[in-house]
Amino acid sequence: MQIKVAIVMGSDSDWRVMKKAKEILDSFEIPSVCKVVSAHRTPEDISPFLSESEKAGAKVVIAGAGAAAHLAGVLASYTLLPVIGVPLNSTPMNGMDSLLATVQMPEGIPVATVGIDNAGNAALLAIRMLAMTDPAILNRLNAYKAEMVAKTRKKSENLK
Amino acid sequence: MQIKVAIVMGSDSDWRVMKKAKEILDSFEIPSVCKVVSAHRTPEDISPFLSESEKAGAKVVIAGAGAAAHLAGVLASYTLLPVIGVPLNSTPMNGMDSLLATVQMPEGIPVATVGIDNAGNAALLAIRMLAMTDPAILNRLNAYKAEMVAKTRKKSENLK
Amino acid sequence: MQIKVAIVMGSDSDWRVMKKAKEILDSFEIPSVCKVVSAHRTPEDISPFLSESEKAGAKVVIAGAGAAAHLAGVLASYTLLPVIGVPLNSTPMNGMDSLLATVQMPEGIPVATVGIDNAGNAALLAIRMLAMTDPAILNRLNAYKAEMVAKTRKKSENLK
Amino acid sequence: MQIKVAIVMGSDSDWRVMKKAKEILDSFEIPSVCKVVSAHRTPEDISPFLSESEKAGAKVVIAGAGAAAHLAGVLASYTLLPVIGVPLNSTPMNGMDSLLATVQMPEGIPVATVGIDNAGNAALLAIRMLAMTDPAILNRLNAYKAEMVAKTRKKSENLK
Amino acid sequence: MQIKVAIVMGSDSDWRVMKKAKEILDSFEIPSVCKVVSAHRTPEDISPFLSESEKAGAKVVIAGAGAAAHLAGVLASYTLLPVIGVPLNSTPMNGMDSLLATVQMPEGIPVATVGIDNAGNAALLAIRMLAMTDPAILNRLNAYKAEMVAKTRKKSENLK
Amino acid sequence: MQIKVAIVMGSDSDWRVMKKAKEILDSFEIPSVCKVVSAHRTPEDISPFLSESEKAGAKVVIAGAGAAAHLAGVLASYTLLPVIGVPLNSTPMNGMDSLLATVQMPEGIPVATVGIDNAGNAALLAIRMLAMTDPAILNRLNAYKAEMVAKTRKKSENLK
Amino acid sequence: MQIKVAIVMGSDSDWRVMKKAKEILDSFEIPSVCKVVSAHRTPEDISPFLSESEKAGAKVVIAGAGAAAHLAGVLASYTLLPVIGVPLNSTPMNGMDSLLATVQMPEGIPVATVGIDNAGNAALLAIRMLAMTDPAILNRLNAYKAEMVAKTRKKSENLK
Amino acid sequence: MQIKVAIVMGSDSDWRVMKKAKEILDSFEIPSVCKVVSAHRTPEDISPFLSESEKAGAKVVIAGAGAAAHLAGVLASYTLLPVIGVPLNSTPMNGMDSLLATVQMPEGIPVATVGIDNAGNAALLAIRMLAMTDPAILNRLNAYKAEMVAKTRKKSENLK
Repeated sequence: MQIKVAIVMGSDSDWRVMKKAKEILDSFEIPSVCKVVSAHRTPEDISPFLSESEKAGAKVVIAGAGAAAHLAGVLASYTLLPVIGVPLNSTPMNGMDSLLATVQMPEGIPVATVGIDNAGNAALLAIRMLAMTDPAILNRLNAYKAEMVAKTRKKSENLK
Repeated sequence: MQIKVAIVMGSDSDWRVMKKAKEILDSFEIPSVCKVVSAHRTPEDISPFLSESEKAGAKVVIAGAGAAAHLAGVLASYTLLPVIGVPLNSTPMNGMDSLLATVQMPEGIPVATVGIDNAGNAALLAIRMLAMTDPAILNRLNAYKAEMVAKTRKKSENLK
Repeated sequence: MQIKVAIVMGSDSDWRVMKKAKEILDSFEIPSVCKVVSAHRTPEDISPFLSESEKAGAKVVIAGAGAAAHLAGVLASYTLLPVIGVPLNSTPMNGMDSLLATVQMPEGIPVATVGIDNAGNAALLAIRMLAMTDPAILNRLNAYKAEMVAKTRKKSENLK
Repeated sequence: MQIKVAIVMGSDSDWRVMKKAKEILDSFEIPSVCKVVSAHRTPEDISPFLSESEKAGAKVVIAGAGAAAHLAGVLASYTLLPVIGVPLNSTPMNGMDSLLATVQMPEGIPVATVGIDNAGNAALLAIRMLAMTDPAILNRLNAYKAEMVAKTRKKSENLK
Repeated sequence: MQIKVAIVMGSDSDWRVMKKAKEILDSFEIPSVCKVVSAHRTPEDISPFLSESEKAGAKVVIAGAGAAAHLAGVLASYTLLPVIGVPLNSTPMNGMDSLLATVQMPEGIPVATVGIDNAGNAALLAIRMLAMTDPAILNRLNAYKAEMVAKTRKKSENLK
Repeated sequence: MQIKVAIVMGSDSDWRVMKKAKEILDSFEIPSVCKVVSAHRTPEDISPFLSESEKAGAKVVIAGAGAAAHLAGVLASYTLLPVIGVPLNSTPMNGMDSLLATVQMPEGIPVATVGIDNAGNAALLAIRMLAMTDPAILNRLNAYKAEMVAKTRKKSENLK
Repeated sequence: MQIKVAIVMGSDSDWRVMKKAKEILDSFEIPSVCKVVSAHRTPEDISPFLSESEKAGAKVVIAGAGAAAHLAGVLASYTLLPVIGVPLNSTPMNGMDSLLATVQMPEGIPVATVGIDNAGNAALLAIRMLAMTDPAILNRLNAYKAEMVAKTRKKSENLK
Repeated sequence: MQIKVAIVMGSDSDWRVMKKAKEILDSFEIPSVCKVVSAHRTPEDISPFLSESEKAGAKVVIAGAGAAAHLAGVLASYTLLPVIGVPLNSTPMNGMDSLLATVQMPEGIPVATVGIDNAGNAALLAIRMLAMTDPAILNRLNAYKAEMVAKTRKKSENLK
């Protein structure tokens, strides 16, 4: 089966946060694959991982990393697919280190950065990109939004 | 003519930074439109602007704003197109205020945030999104990358 | 019955902090209403919520939100009532993100910002605004202050 | 003549920023008075300044101060009028020191804080408070808003 | 009995940190007094507290406060005794708010600031000031230092 | 002649800021000496400098340093005189590096820290310490304060 | 037996973090020694500690300290061996204080700084320095790297 | 001729800062080479650059980069030589982004980080590493230190 999104993280301990991306993609019935590749520990694996993912059909890459979070940036320097970076809160710096290391890319190599630990938004951003040319996914996004609205309104009613 | 990208900024003083996005899109021959819409001063214009842009063909929105930079987030709450946020350095806070106000979106409404004042990367990210399904744009991205590599190598040779 | 203050928060999980505002208003016998409205998830509800609140008599709006906390700013762009923003500590950033996203508003659309998670001060600020023209409320504020002084002095006596 | 707003700043060098508040109040035809009172250099003058201002009719106090900006907080501890704090950027800390010293007040003594150096928003916030019970001022606020909308729309048209 | 040092804190909840100052002063047999006085809640008590303390013999004042920590600065504006400020970590800001609100005083009114929550160093700084003209206290400081050296050396020996 | 205060800085480029301390001490007719000693470049000179200063009569040490500003802390570890640290703004970090490196001393070795680049307050703090037991200096402090009050009041009168 | 690396920390409570450096050096069969020396409490012990360590064969020094972390910098001012600094997270500042106090050294006295609490990387950096001229250690580094790669790849396989 | 140190920077605009490293190495008569290689723009050149440098004799690598400064970290993941990172101040973030992106490396891949823009210290750190086993270089370091001491002492004499 063809995948649409490749999810990669710097360590298996990041799975605790990154699995949210997988869950949302699953709920949208968008096939994806998850890998551990480290920009620092296994730099030689980055290029093969990308080739493989592109061959498997990936149109978007989601990368989660903490500390001096280079993973998304390094991926973006090897591929021309859009790369979404999730800065992870994994040091005493509260994610400020990973946020700056992910978002402050030099001109030429963009990373689409979402909020700290916000793997859910990374998935939803990937879905918006896919929905640009896929009406079925756009329909599901519309349904997702309607449900979000309904939930928020119900919360308001239940407030005391 | 159909546009592909809608560029919007909170104030005409942001044009100084945001024009770089327009220039890069132009160099890729990707039609775009530029507007001033303020999340705070003209909130009623946001929804019409988006309807109009979508009707005109826009597939991606780029939003630049400074200070308590809500523009990208508000746009993302009204449209299902991917929204790219450019945090602008326009207060004594050095852009930290606009970065956090742009990137730290709640789950459900993602903003693809690029670096502070990095309108160039916003354009290149939009181009990557369009290239997902447009081989001609992908070709131009490949050429852009090759030129970037050549320039960097020439800089190395010229270093003293 | 007419209300005086409308309290709104971005999520029902913010109630844990925001209920303090309700409690203080109650203790001053100032009628208020509490709602969940999200600047991002239910932007279409903001304008109706404000119309309804103003019709019900609201003279001040209190808004609590975390992360890229746009709620107070968006409310202030739709109403001419004074809007008090409570930045909530709801991400690893310790409330710095919500503080900057709430307070750093562009000229033209002010938000009266109080300290992080300080819903109590939001209520007391609303009460001061109402007391500008309501001597009964001013009397209660005077009593509140006298009690605060007495409590602090008793604490000093009890210190060992 | 009765005043409506008392503007106070910690040093005459703050006038460069704070005069914007005076100008906006003037344009709304709201009488105000401007003084230099320092929380640290002339603490004994704070209580007399407030008594005098209240006698002269002041309903709101605007205080601008930089560095360890205690002025707004100290004023708020002596009066029950709403106090608006303008954190000024006057040290190498870029206003972060004055922002935190102004906004992070303990529960019981609120300061309505606006953005760094944003004396204009302090005036507009005072005007919103006065407009709560003064329809003439509310009318002018409506006109101000309409003009702001018109200006922003014109900027958009003029953008190339 | 004459006291030498007056210790004051903004709230009785600060005692948890500030008692360390009392303990060190006690161990040096330096008489001191502890009070709760709030710069914001009981500003009228500051001047009487200082007069009383000076009459009782106080030569140094130690003030602990959190958040927008104005206490030390306000004390320093009423007395000419040296005032030592202890910024307390009492908000989500990790003490950065109280540090900046304590140390960034305008020229003219100095506060001798020690580290966040470091009430022990406040006491030792007061003791150094007293030792400037009191050889008995200087002797005890010398003994304290010798003991500190001995303890550190023993820790090194015990390391595994 | 006996000195009262020893002023030391890490580099002669710090004189631009530190001379303010000398000027204020001169205006109080308090004899002082100024030296360049670097905690890092000339650590062997620290102990001799202190011995010499103490022999010459110094009762207080003022130390100004930037970046990883260790000077005040190292001095405080060699002497039992009170040491006042002036964090200097000499790197792109805006003085945050020197502030934290000066104020966050471990318990046992206090540094009396003043605001960034605030050499004037360092002098005034030293003067307060000397005034603890010197009525003549206390008189001059009273005069200094009275003049400061008069100046601030005149500024208020001159404000437009 | 000759040692290769001297590990020093400011307090025995730092051992909890610093022992990781010892463990990695042990696993590389590189002899080392561990001491507690405080830049502030036992400054007189720094020079003897270094002489002794150099005589015992030390080629690299690793220093761990928190807060106003001067230890690595002071060591680097007394020795010409490379000094590696480990900023420790030991205050409410999350290690930002120790990071800046360790890394922002003035030109002339370098400290090789690693990440906050990252004693493991301090050891690996010392090992890289020793491997510059020791092929046996270089071999072990190669094996270490290979194992790290294998582990990361296995983690990827085990991910769900 | 054999080189000892390879200096690399992300852009030729970094030469303005990085040339200081070259100048110091030259003054120590240590042969070095300077290149522009970008972690993001020319990632494929990193591995060849390192092979070439190692073949040419390089024992240490110095890397200067700004913003999301990945260069030093990526180099350290491909080579086992010690890598020294110089965080450059090239964005509105004042170098905080490049400092955190350089120093906060995950365990396994150390980068020896020096202060922001402190290319001089990078050179001196490389020289200390080379001096570990090269007595001639150690002699020059001793002379450098002696000169630094003499200069600092002369500055003290010249102060006024």
